[in-house]
Amino acid sequence: MDYYSSHISKLIEEFSRLPGIGSKSAARLAFHIINMSGEQVAALTGAITSAKENVRYCRECYTLTDEELCPICRSAKRDHKTIMVVENTRDLAAYEKTGQYDGVYHVLHGAISPMLGIGPNDIKLKELIERLKGDIDEVIVSTNSSLEGETTAVYISKLIRPMGIKVTRIASGVPVGGDLEYIDSVTLLKALEGRVLMK
Amino acid sequence: MDYYSSHISKLIEEFSRLPGIGSKSAARLAFHIINMSGEQVAALTGAITSAKENVRYCRECYTLTDEELCPICRSAKRDHKTIMVVENTRDLAAYEKTGQYDGVYHVLHGAISPMLGIGPNDIKLKELIERLKGDIDEVIVSTNSSLEGETTAVYISKLIRPMGIKVTRIASGVPVGGDLEYIDSVTLLKALEGRVLMK
Repeated sequence: MDYYSSHISKLIEEFSRLPGIGSKSAARLAFHIINMSGEQVAALTGAITSAKENVRYCRECYTLTDEELCPICRSAKRDHKTIMVVENTRDLAAYEKTGQYDGVYHVLHGAISPMLGIGPNDIKLKELIERLKGDIDEVIVSTNSSLEGETTAVYISKLIRPMGIKVTRIASGVPVGGDLEYIDSVTLLKALEGRVLMK
Repeated sequence: MDYYSSHISKLIEEFSRLPGIGSKSAARLAFHIINMSGEQVAALTGAITSAKENVRYCRECYTLTDEELCPICRSAKRDHKTIMVVENTRDLAAYEKTGQYDGVYHVLHGAISPMLGIGPNDIKLKELIERLKGDIDEVIVSTNSSLEGETTAVYISKLIRPMGIKVTRIASGVPVGGDLEYIDSVTLLKALEGRVLMK
């Protein structure tokens, strides 16, 4: 790409390495950077560097946080006897946005995937078992409804049930507002299986 | 967003300011940054900073380049009497990728848009007129086929034709491989108007 300046080519290359950014978006971003003010560019690079340097795992739930204990684990308003297990911090944030869940979380940072060679020891599972030695009422498994998420859910359930702790799994079914005709048949069958009595 | 670390929230905010990046992509990028190695993060921020600091306009054609004169303006193999006028460096790169154009370019860095308050003095138009004082055979106007691009093309043509220089406009029509049934009627009419005799 010698029709671009070498600095721009390098920047496009760096941007293309990020997830979900193809070569066209990378070029668009690179040219946007050139047109930004010096302060804006400094704010962006500063935010990248300080996020990388200062973010760590919460000692309790392993979400990404600035402090030793995340605000959720620190909060006295949360029910510390109910743990929701999620694959990553974005999934935690999705449930926090609902504003209706008042338990705590456990972030696995991945899911078991024999295909990708990710086993139970590659995710924060030992750390979950360690937490269950405390006084816990329920573990809600909220891994994704994918092959890896389901595998992880089954694995966790088999591991935890013998400990006498209640293990639940979030429901699979038709998304609210979803149009049946556009929904895949596996989801439709799951929704049928999981049907509930109308009140 | 207090369920994210403040450093992550800040980074998500910075990423969301970039063009084409919504809040979900920004979060995805931010978490990707946290998982990147320190060297990879340094390479990214370094590329951003050095592109911002080192890239400037070519003295001749105003494309973004590392040196005073861009490789195209410096090249003796190019036809310096034919100037293609484009809106930005990405459009220049698109024509360079064809490998079939051997003239030089002039990058306007925008298009006339009364709607956005961008007038002829806000783009590199005076600089184009200045270049035309030299020995120029043809100006090929390759601004976009949008309202702004067409406005700019008409404006340039009215400005340059009195100087006795040939001004041409790239053809509008059906893209190669395009399926007529999916093409808008304005394009179909343009293609009809611009029809050429078959040999």
